[in-house]
Amino acid sequence: MTDSHVVPQPNSADQALRARAERVIPGGLWGHMTARILPEGYPQFFDRAEGCHLVDADGRRFVDMMCSWGPIVLGHHHPAVDAAVAAQAARGDCMNGPAPVLVELAELVVATIPHADWCQFGKNGTDATTTCVTVARAATGRRKVLVARGAYHGAVPWCSPSVAGVTAEDRAHLLFYDYDDVASLHAAAEQAGDDLAAIMASAFRHDMGQPQVMPTPEFARAARALCDETGAALVLDDVRAGFRIDLGGSWEPLGVQPDLSAWSKAIANGHPLSAVTGRERFREAASRVFSTGSFWCGAAPMAAAVATLTELRRVDGPGRMRALGQRLRDGMAERAARHGLRIDQSGPPQMPTILFADDPEWKRGFAFCAEALRQGAYLHPKHNMFLSCAHTEADIDRVLDAADAGFRHVAR
Amino acid sequence: MTDSHVVPQPNSADQALRARAERVIPGGLWGHMTARILPEGYPQFFDRAEGCHLVDADGRRFVDMMCSWGPIVLGHHHPAVDAAVAAQAARGDCMNGPAPVLVELAELVVATIPHADWCQFGKNGTDATTTCVTVARAATGRRKVLVARGAYHGAVPWCSPSVAGVTAEDRAHLLFYDYDDVASLHAAAEQAGDDLAAIMASAFRHDMGQPQVMPTPEFARAARALCDETGAALVLDDVRAGFRIDLGGSWEPLGVQPDLSAWSKAIANGHPLSAVTGRERFREAASRVFSTGSFWCGAAPMAAAVATLTELRRVDGPGRMRALGQRLRDGMAERAARHGLRIDQSGPPQMPTILFADDPEWKRGFAFCAEALRQGAYLHPKHNMFLSCAHTEADIDRVLDAADAGFRHVAR
Repeated sequence: MTDSHVVPQPNSADQALRARAERVIPGGLWGHMTARILPEGYPQFFDRAEGCHLVDADGRRFVDMMCSWGPIVLGHHHPAVDAAVAAQAARGDCMNGPAPVLVELAELVVATIPHADWCQFGKNGTDATTTCVTVARAATGRRKVLVARGAYHGAVPWCSPSVAGVTAEDRAHLLFYDYDDVASLHAAAEQAGDDLAAIMASAFRHDMGQPQVMPTPEFARAARALCDETGAALVLDDVRAGFRIDLGGSWEPLGVQPDLSAWSKAIANGHPLSAVTGRERFREAASRVFSTGSFWCGAAPMAAAVATLTELRRVDGPGRMRALGQRLRDGMAERAARHGLRIDQSGPPQMPTILFADDPEWKRGFAFCAEALRQGAYLHPKHNMFLSCAHTEADIDRVLDAADAGFRHVAR
Repeated sequence: MTDSHVVPQPNSADQALRARAERVIPGGLWGHMTARILPEGYPQFFDRAEGCHLVDADGRRFVDMMCSWGPIVLGHHHPAVDAAVAAQAARGDCMNGPAPVLVELAELVVATIPHADWCQFGKNGTDATTTCVTVARAATGRRKVLVARGAYHGAVPWCSPSVAGVTAEDRAHLLFYDYDDVASLHAAAEQAGDDLAAIMASAFRHDMGQPQVMPTPEFARAARALCDETGAALVLDDVRAGFRIDLGGSWEPLGVQPDLSAWSKAIANGHPLSAVTGRERFREAASRVFSTGSFWCGAAPMAAAVATLTELRRVDGPGRMRALGQRLRDGMAERAARHGLRIDQSGPPQMPTILFADDPEWKRGFAFCAEALRQGAYLHPKHNMFLSCAHTEADIDRVLDAADAGFRHVAR
């Protein structure tokens, strides 16, 4: 892949693929990656990827700020990850049980994450959050789970943001609090009474279309204290943020450790894997809960995870992504101001959300992103974005140049 | 890999890995692949695989009759699958959206499966069964789902064979019938009244530890008729059997087509992928249900699936596996009789279950399998096994030689 971004071409190949997809896939694509929710001109189909660069089906090249919505943390085709996957796959991947790499990975996870006395693996983030809830219920013999209003914890009936096909019973034992609001957390816990199984919290508030909110230490400590008092499990949903904020878990900087954590996205640099980690007190319950899948012992994604976590430790991945994200944030602020525009930048620098002031329907955000895309930067107008260790300062500066064109477009 | 099976060695490497795993994974391993449920001497960890041959962590070599509990349908390291995966992975795997291979795969699935007007993909069999239930509820606006007593449809609270951490509400809308029993199906449907969303059925009854039962055409037709009368969805759970009985779906030989089907295991020869297929009537509901995961647009497993389905069509995979399975079945019957033993062989030949008569605790089965393992054949004493297209007649004969030693051991 060359280092220059190409002049945008009409996306006719993408349109043709979408028309074919529309016939054989409901709505053209399921889930969060549908391009229907994105600004005009965004591609649906991608031809190839290298580092932090994507090429769509029409040959248009972008500096990517979504990292596949999180998984790509070292960049596409990272040599250490690719080599580990190739070596393991050449021996065996999906066999009648795990390969020895399972033990290597589990030991590495337990050594990396302070609260982890044990771990187990799955494929989806939803596998991990669902297992956390089930383990908490099995361990406590209780049913109620507190979740934050509007938080995303997966895409099955108990937690899906959609209500299509969901019954009232699927969510009968959920109680809701407002993220980072101690009083509402206490109120929800009171409602649960002596039936409180778990308090679930995302690493920070990262609801789509809203400014991100970092938890205060007071909030995290209040959740921890409630669980200590009641015996409920404090469950950290680190599926989205895990391994970008702190390799030990996203609440490590707050000094608060969960009882159970759910991990996925960045754990294996794009290879399908998720994990549950937990404290000793929940080990026995975890061994009783039956969680499994046909591919959960697949060895190649585990080899990818060992290589990914090792590399993230070696290069201080979170620190590197934080510095790059800060460069992006500072540059965005400077350029928006230059065009007389007010923007809201929120969340940790390595997972930035950029929203325009007074833009409740994200119209400016869409116009901004559409123009930046034409200039070779793939940004998101509503969702948090993701840095990777493959981004360079030059990549960030290229994104800022594209953003500058976007701001100019909006300012007009 | 050489063609001879080695003399069994003590499994000390496996024991050492198990001891390490026990410290960092609850119970040493989650789910269905735990070796704790297998006879003494069975390995937990595998070093490598080729075709239908496995080598465990101690270098013991086996002809494998489990095929990774289903996924390996063409054999490990099938050249066409490996080449397709390598070519796609070299371009891109987990990107900001799918690669064009998604469209190719979806068109191939729709062209291969007569009832499929559309499809979508996930990672786990449980993803697919859960989506089928949710789509059926979304389409009908009803809640009750009929499932067969004892049937396995996945490993999350609504369907898990375990009750640890499961609440009553998780299963509030399930009603049960006996597989292949028309009267009990009607009784369950009556119980559902005007709230019947779906009838779910496995391809055949394949409950662990029991003889397998093929459905009669009358049963399949009764299920179809009930759904036609009520507007409920007929859901075929083809996760385990799919692509081994008939490439168009396991009820094609019965002449009965479902409304929705769940697929996984064999779809991509061991690469993580599952699918839901459905009729036109359920397309709109499928587009409303939010099912997604971080890796569900991963392109390498889709390339594996295109290669796998293409090869299965080219070589008539189901026919080949049926013939090999019949050779195994005939040989097992002959050898058991020679040793004066009565065995029960059930299910389609390509997915055989072998149980001993008067062996309610599977003690003979365990002794038989343990001895066959020592002789180089990996069989299962309680669960159905799986043929693959990589098995040769010589492999089957080697398994029969090992089984002969097992029968001799049991007869003594």
